[in-house]
Amino acid sequence: MQKTNEASQPSEYEKKKANFLVRTFWTFVMIGLFFGALFSGHIYIIMCITIVQIVSFKEVIAIASVPSRARQLRPTKSLNWYWLVTTMYFLYGETVIYYFKHIVLVDRVLLPLATHHRFISFVLYVIGFVFFVANLKSGHLKFQFTNFAWTHMALYLIVVQAHFVMNNVFEGMIWFFLPASLVICNDIFAYICGITFGRTQLIQVSPKKTVEGFVGAWIMTVLWGIMLTNVLMRSKYFICPVNDLGSNIFTGLECDPNPAFLKQTYTLPDLFFLPEGTNFSLTFEPMQFHSMVLASFASLIAPFGGFFASGLKRTFKIKDFGDSIPGHGGMTDRMDCQFIMGFFAFIYYQTFVAQHKLNYGNVMELAITGLSLDEQMELVKGLSKYLENQGVLNSEVSYQPLTSCSL
Amino acid sequence: MQKTNEASQPSEYEKKKANFLVRTFWTFVMIGLFFGALFSGHIYIIMCITIVQIVSFKEVIAIASVPSRARQLRPTKSLNWYWLVTTMYFLYGETVIYYFKHIVLVDRVLLPLATHHRFISFVLYVIGFVFFVANLKSGHLKFQFTNFAWTHMALYLIVVQAHFVMNNVFEGMIWFFLPASLVICNDIFAYICGITFGRTQLIQVSPKKTVEGFVGAWIMTVLWGIMLTNVLMRSKYFICPVNDLGSNIFTGLECDPNPAFLKQTYTLPDLFFLPEGTNFSLTFEPMQFHSMVLASFASLIAPFGGFFASGLKRTFKIKDFGDSIPGHGGMTDRMDCQFIMGFFAFIYYQTFVAQHKLNYGNVMELAITGLSLDEQMELVKGLSKYLENQGVLNSEVSYQPLTSCSL
Repeated sequence: MQKTNEASQPSEYEKKKANFLVRTFWTFVMIGLFFGALFSGHIYIIMCITIVQIVSFKEVIAIASVPSRARQLRPTKSLNWYWLVTTMYFLYGETVIYYFKHIVLVDRVLLPLATHHRFISFVLYVIGFVFFVANLKSGHLKFQFTNFAWTHMALYLIVVQAHFVMNNVFEGMIWFFLPASLVICNDIFAYICGITFGRTQLIQVSPKKTVEGFVGAWIMTVLWGIMLTNVLMRSKYFICPVNDLGSNIFTGLECDPNPAFLKQTYTLPDLFFLPEGTNFSLTFEPMQFHSMVLASFASLIAPFGGFFASGLKRTFKIKDFGDSIPGHGGMTDRMDCQFIMGFFAFIYYQTFVAQHKLNYGNVMELAITGLSLDEQMELVKGLSKYLENQGVLNSEVSYQPLTSCSL
Repeated sequence: MQKTNEASQPSEYEKKKANFLVRTFWTFVMIGLFFGALFSGHIYIIMCITIVQIVSFKEVIAIASVPSRARQLRPTKSLNWYWLVTTMYFLYGETVIYYFKHIVLVDRVLLPLATHHRFISFVLYVIGFVFFVANLKSGHLKFQFTNFAWTHMALYLIVVQAHFVMNNVFEGMIWFFLPASLVICNDIFAYICGITFGRTQLIQVSPKKTVEGFVGAWIMTVLWGIMLTNVLMRSKYFICPVNDLGSNIFTGLECDPNPAFLKQTYTLPDLFFLPEGTNFSLTFEPMQFHSMVLASFASLIAPFGGFFASGLKRTFKIKDFGDSIPGHGGMTDRMDCQFIMGFFAFIYYQTFVAQHKLNYGNVMELAITGLSLDEQMELVKGLSKYLENQGVLNSEVSYQPLTSCSL
């Protein structure tokens, strides 16, 4: 093997060039696919995230499995996929129930799946757990437990975090696209600033990262965030939550924009050194402030997701997580900082931006899960009457009395 | 060492006797403390669970840490405790906010902590994560990552599950005490039935467990569950959710009991082989049925938590998880089946028993104050459709279209 390597030394340059071409080609393919999905509609982006999470999961569990032993333990391998399916069933279910209450709760087939969702997921998980324990084999215990812990780690770091990224998509495309692009922008400028000014090493696990690259990329990412936010805010397709799954960039979306996207004037309190009566005020969209926070997270914290991944690779003495993307290495190598970024964007959005406005879906859920049939009937009658009084409804609601409880 | 052992052989019996006495003494101390806490009030039981979870966490992380290396890596040890504190802050906060909304949400100091709780927890977690990555040292990577995965495993298996046990306490003492006692009862009878009838080995990791013990204990646990439920249901201290934290067994609690605790008559549909007109009906509290489900879980599934723990002990070639309880070994050895049982009890309660106390008035108020007329109309239509599907409503809802001005 080494001999062939030496013999082919003259073509080293050729190889690098070929690799560069492959890499560039696939970079454009990925960018094309990504923007294609982004503009085609939310469902396509969800599909992309699903593929990314499955491929990343596959890569991460693969590096820890010792193939020689794994071959004798086929159940272990099947079990890894079973955990993935169970976790995805649970998380996708949660999302679907939360965002599509109004569809799920009136459907006769889906309703029991929705009201028992957590119980069903728990039962599925417990089946896997019992199967795992029943298949423990002395002599393989260490491998089996390591595999168990490792798979749960991967589920938590990849699948759970990807779930929040999907929720971001449903809250409005900007909450997915802005954070993702901030991370990519930061990555690029950390490289550019690093090779231009880089001197001081930043962290032990990643020797190529420099303090200069880190700081320079932060500044550039904040500027990029402000610019991009400015552009995206003009499009309701980006700022509206998904109220219509069939929408794309051409059909657009309609909604009353969240106040974060509306210009506000902030007046600074009179400063003691200014002459009285001087007003100092700033007018901008609160979203610009949020964008700066997200850009700072993408620059200062998210890279640690990447360092974490580098550390893992060093631990297992591998260069890449896999070869899912020709010329780029594994999917996980490209996505390592995206997961924690998406998680942060989700929590930040929910805490500081989301308006917990009631809508028809919320109230419907409350009524169906929280009230008895009798009370629900009362509600329909009461509300119908109220609407009649408002002059918008003519209703004739007749109801059969419930027969004495027939189990 | 071996020599002394041989020399002291005659006193082997003495040692066993001494150990038996210590074990019996501490069994009674534990039982005394447990019932003392149980009758003194919910806060004391919460304190017990907190101590149990901290001690178990300490034991589980201790077995995986390789002391020789850990000594050079002091941050790793501190970090384990930091994760524990962060997780507990998050979970206790969630519980307090959920059950004490009426206090938390009107308090000026607590309100911002409540509304930003998840964000604060996330920030605390991220600080730990960054600290972990920044302290990665080449040469120790494998140990550090193993430690990271292991600690997260322990957090998930112990701390998260203990959180659900605490929620059970708040939902009513019976939801904590019944499942816990079912597991203990099952443990005892698995031992008794095992040594009496045991022949067939059940599972490879625990050679002493037999099929006969497993089945015999199931029958006894179900019977015990029915008896205990019958007794506990008479006391409102056990069946009421905590609406007064100062209550104990003497002051009691007051509430309208959940319908699960009220007798109901179930009529079986006429069976074809019975003469017409024969009525076959059963009257019992639905809680008795729930109790049988819980007892079956405690007998058939929860033991796998114990097998899991046995497997772990074998992997690390240790006999016990520690020596926290004199004569008994570690806390984790006694609690291994309790965690998954508590988790199941929580999910089961939430899915099949909990009444989300809402009434027609609340929902009506929400709908009228929080929804637009259009949405109210949607609600009436959606709910009517739902009630039609349930077969209790024949509705003829016709509505006049909204005129453009009346929004």
